[in-house]
Amino acid sequence: MTIKNRQVLLASRPKGAPAESDFRLVETELRDAEEGEILVKNRFLSLDPYMRGRISESKSYAAGVEIGAVMIGSTVGEVIQSRHPGFAVGDVVVAGLGWQEHGLSTGQGVMKVDASRVPLSAYLGVVGMPGITAWYGLLEIGKPKAGETVVVGAASGPVGSVVGQLAKLAGCRTVGVAGGKAKCDFVTGELGFDACVDHRDPALKDRLREATPDGIDVYFENVGGPLLDLVLARLNTFARIPLCGLVSQYNATEPYGVKNFGALLTNRVSLRGFIISDHMDRWPQALAELGAHVVEGRIKYRESIAKGLESAPAAFIGMLEGKNFGKQLVELAP
Amino acid sequence: MTIKNRQVLLASRPKGAPAESDFRLVETELRDAEEGEILVKNRFLSLDPYMRGRISESKSYAAGVEIGAVMIGSTVGEVIQSRHPGFAVGDVVVAGLGWQEHGLSTGQGVMKVDASRVPLSAYLGVVGMPGITAWYGLLEIGKPKAGETVVVGAASGPVGSVVGQLAKLAGCRTVGVAGGKAKCDFVTGELGFDACVDHRDPALKDRLREATPDGIDVYFENVGGPLLDLVLARLNTFARIPLCGLVSQYNATEPYGVKNFGALLTNRVSLRGFIISDHMDRWPQALAELGAHVVEGRIKYRESIAKGLESAPAAFIGMLEGKNFGKQLVELAP
Repeated sequence: MTIKNRQVLLASRPKGAPAESDFRLVETELRDAEEGEILVKNRFLSLDPYMRGRISESKSYAAGVEIGAVMIGSTVGEVIQSRHPGFAVGDVVVAGLGWQEHGLSTGQGVMKVDASRVPLSAYLGVVGMPGITAWYGLLEIGKPKAGETVVVGAASGPVGSVVGQLAKLAGCRTVGVAGGKAKCDFVTGELGFDACVDHRDPALKDRLREATPDGIDVYFENVGGPLLDLVLARLNTFARIPLCGLVSQYNATEPYGVKNFGALLTNRVSLRGFIISDHMDRWPQALAELGAHVVEGRIKYRESIAKGLESAPAAFIGMLEGKNFGKQLVELAP
Repeated sequence: MTIKNRQVLLASRPKGAPAESDFRLVETELRDAEEGEILVKNRFLSLDPYMRGRISESKSYAAGVEIGAVMIGSTVGEVIQSRHPGFAVGDVVVAGLGWQEHGLSTGQGVMKVDASRVPLSAYLGVVGMPGITAWYGLLEIGKPKAGETVVVGAASGPVGSVVGQLAKLAGCRTVGVAGGKAKCDFVTGELGFDACVDHRDPALKDRLREATPDGIDVYFENVGGPLLDLVLARLNTFARIPLCGLVSQYNATEPYGVKNFGALLTNRVSLRGFIISDHMDRWPQALAELGAHVVEGRIKYRESIAKGLESAPAAFIGMLEGKNFGKQLVELAP
């Protein structure tokens, strides 16, 4: 059986914002699964800010994508051939098969999931890497206590939305930062944050002050840039900063200079950078807790779904500019 | 008995570098100790970078000094009157009596010390607040492991010198940063650091790279500014940064913008700001360990001693510019 497979390759390394010309769509023929392999038909591809780091020349926390290679990325799909004892045709799996319609795998890093209680796409968001990033960073590093104030950027996105809802469940005052009124309305109206400030507001500093009358105890940092300086100026003593992203900086050709660094000293702040793949041992607990929250309606989420592999580059570029609203996915097959 | 007492008061709040005119020397008459009090004749006054923060208008970690008040500071001296059951005339004490020749105290925060094994002045340095700051920050936050590389700024000073010697005792490659050849020679020759780089060297970046061939695992941060950015660029995965000072910034009217903040994310760094007065419960253990190291010659130290209270303002101003060499003290009485 010959399967036509479409793939998106990295064509060139962007400097600053990526362009569609940095990617190339190709059609190849895929061989059958060999002994010990599975062949997966991908249904959804996840687009995530970390991918920007993997296509840079500068050092990131993981190996970069080579020019001419398939773009990396998490996927969910269905096993359509199996010569692996652990998988059967029809199994639904989360895998990291990249920007392509099908993928072969030895099963390493492939996880069978139950899509009957939680929609399949959620395994790339709220009960996937972004949700577990939120869970780990907030609970293990942020250590929120009831009555404290938690601030999170990109609050309508897949990480920020879970951070804020978990913080509410922990009894905190929860303040999101998002781009534009529609996202802010969603964050307070649908997700139940106590407040949301628009980072495009020229009076952002005043808005943030009004939204955090008792200062800030936990800042879940996934944005960076000027917002970081505004937050640093409002930190309370012994504040905690889980640092899992700096999306405002990924396309920057000159890094933003953080001016209020001294606030980390005067307030005796704990800050820790983390990447969730260092903490795979915590996934089962995180998945169980997040899954229960979703099924029982305590955690809500929103998705932006682009249709077809060919839409992936534009959707990725838009996500880095904040054009998505909720978790950005690409639907590869209905 | 009337005692003439000389004091240095804060005359005005400096913007940028302090000037001698920001201080005023006065002579007053001191009353006798009342019931529950002691009167101490101060022998040494400690000058420390943190004092700069206490005379600013901006927020620091502690209350500031009011205009017209005696400058704060740690002192060692001898009890010359006691109406307190816990103290006798002749007791030698560490206290926080400020920039003055004598002081009255209720005994709160006053510690009797044994100056027979360790010189009295050392209780303001290597076995005092700076040494204990080094001990706590390096061991509790830095958590150095044998074979790792530890970098510390202001390496000939009272904190940095102890950090480096403790790091050597822990089996680490130890690299100091100091201002000028004389200090660097002392740091490697006398204190036994593996290397020392001169922060005034125009090729500091290259020198730091050469001195840290295996990257940096622990950066004990007490300096800030451009050095911080150079160090951030050389951090290893899971590096730790105890942050106890930013002396390069204390006189700055515009804060330095930290450009390599993203290295905290890519390397999953733990950074924690701390002030040793939050951790008084650890002093007995720290004092015992540091005292033994000093008595047995494993930790060496150097002092800059200015003579007479009237020399305190100039000595303080010089210390903020790095003109001292070793722990800066003022000898108030022979």
